[in-house]
Amino acid sequence: MEEAGPQDTDLASVRAAATRIADIVHRTPVATSRSLDLRSGRRLHFKCENLQRGGTFKIRGAYHALVRLAPDVAARGVVSHSSGNHAQALALAARVVGVPAHVVVPENANPVKRRAAEEYGARIVTCAPTLAAREETAEEVLRVTGGTLIPPYDHPDVIAGQGTVGVELLEQVEGLDAIVAPVGGGGLVAGVAVAATETDPRVRVFAAEPRGADDAARSKAAGRRLPQESPDTIADGLLTSLGERTWPILRDRVQAVLTVPDEAIVEAMRLFWERTKLLIEPSAAVAVAAVLSEEFRALDDIERVGVILSGGNVNLDALPW
Amino acid sequence: MEEAGPQDTDLASVRAAATRIADIVHRTPVATSRSLDLRSGRRLHFKCENLQRGGTFKIRGAYHALVRLAPDVAARGVVSHSSGNHAQALALAARVVGVPAHVVVPENANPVKRRAAEEYGARIVTCAPTLAAREETAEEVLRVTGGTLIPPYDHPDVIAGQGTVGVELLEQVEGLDAIVAPVGGGGLVAGVAVAATETDPRVRVFAAEPRGADDAARSKAAGRRLPQESPDTIADGLLTSLGERTWPILRDRVQAVLTVPDEAIVEAMRLFWERTKLLIEPSAAVAVAAVLSEEFRALDDIERVGVILSGGNVNLDALPW
Repeated sequence: MEEAGPQDTDLASVRAAATRIADIVHRTPVATSRSLDLRSGRRLHFKCENLQRGGTFKIRGAYHALVRLAPDVAARGVVSHSSGNHAQALALAARVVGVPAHVVVPENANPVKRRAAEEYGARIVTCAPTLAAREETAEEVLRVTGGTLIPPYDHPDVIAGQGTVGVELLEQVEGLDAIVAPVGGGGLVAGVAVAATETDPRVRVFAAEPRGADDAARSKAAGRRLPQESPDTIADGLLTSLGERTWPILRDRVQAVLTVPDEAIVEAMRLFWERTKLLIEPSAAVAVAAVLSEEFRALDDIERVGVILSGGNVNLDALPW
Repeated sequence: MEEAGPQDTDLASVRAAATRIADIVHRTPVATSRSLDLRSGRRLHFKCENLQRGGTFKIRGAYHALVRLAPDVAARGVVSHSSGNHAQALALAARVVGVPAHVVVPENANPVKRRAAEEYGARIVTCAPTLAAREETAEEVLRVTGGTLIPPYDHPDVIAGQGTVGVELLEQVEGLDAIVAPVGGGGLVAGVAVAATETDPRVRVFAAEPRGADDAARSKAAGRRLPQESPDTIADGLLTSLGERTWPILRDRVQAVLTVPDEAIVEAMRLFWERTKLLIEPSAAVAVAAVLSEEFRALDDIERVGVILSGGNVNLDALPW
């Protein structure tokens, strides 16, 4: 089965990543909320990657992939054709290392994320809002600069970098029964699933997905990787399909994919802001909505839950309520 | 001079308050932000009372005043005719202690704050939006219930309670040169000024005030307490006049009152949300705006600054941008 591919990421590689990125990446705090505990019927431990450098967990994977390049290769720069948080994180990582970053951004990208990538010093190359245009433009940038493409999730160094969230969370909170992380391309949940299940096989890892972009849930149900077509959700960080490397990890190590409708995402986002005073973006609210869902509340033998707040980069001019 | 009154609050009373409230009140974290450091030209240490129980520092003073009552007096309940954060905090404090809270709320009060007081179990008594109506209604409630009025700021136990913010901040951050706190009635800045200047006379305490409600700045300039008439500012927690007890402390222990226009408050609030992912309300943004102001940046011999984020109770349906 071609799609299964090698599972390159293991606990050792995630731990090695944690060591490599420790000086640059924040060890983010874990927040709690009595009122959300009451509503979920569980004890929730929120891993605050919204307080991470760049506003999302993405710096972990981007920086890790960058420092794994040979110095002469890194010096030619890095390229991203993902819009949004990965591009922003790669721009920040490149600035930290002192190499150029070139970011191909579709014209319709979230302006907050685009502006942040610019502020981090990336060169922005705009293109039409199609995957084909993005890939073509990125090819051209790679050819001209001699730089290296750093993919947003389907790369072993990226997955290992994102997995460091899980290593930290397990160190910070004892006795977790479950971890819930949002899934888009799957880099975060795959890395966390490897770290968690290899550290403590008792921990159950769940992916949280918007109902309007439910390729992970459909793939899990079908037993094979299905693409995401025409995603329609407010969670703009979770529009992409699973990758060749993230899918088999999700298939084998993630217990279930919990899907939530946009109304629940918006409600969870607002409730979370009001109760914790922490800004989370819609993609992070997907995980909060999942732990508040009937489906999750009905599961047995889960008391302590780690919830990964993936990011906090919100367009404050277009709040969804 | 009638207005000067006795200065009942000293470091010993603030420290005693800290001990009395320690089991109930959160020791809030201190946040930092490289990007705000750059913009201010200083090293800023944000004391996160927006993460306090009830969403503001007010629980410190309200709970402290309540536990200082004799048990049989407390059992008859507590009454507030202040709208907003104090009422909410008093409701929460009363619930913790297990006594009734009666809150007189003008019809035009911030609905978020009113709803929160209700959720904490307070009995809400609405009245016309005038000071006279509020006082009359509160008198009636006091007469009927035999309860005790807990004022929002001009009370030694309340001031000592709010001062515990300063005790904590000085324990959490070494070498502070200055502390900036918002001023409305003055309970917070007075308590903090006592705690800070008696702990370390080198620390300079500044009050931050909206230009549209600048009674503290005018009082300080005149050398006597002047009332706030017709306040006009987005910072709805800072509309009130200084009290008889808070004024002399501000006069003697606060170095200067920094006033900021509403545009700067809104800009600081939004910038703070975007950069730190922490929700602060306009009244807290007043202190952020003050440290970003030309006036404050021009001061010499200030490197490390404590900034007190007084609260995070924002009406998410009416953001000011």
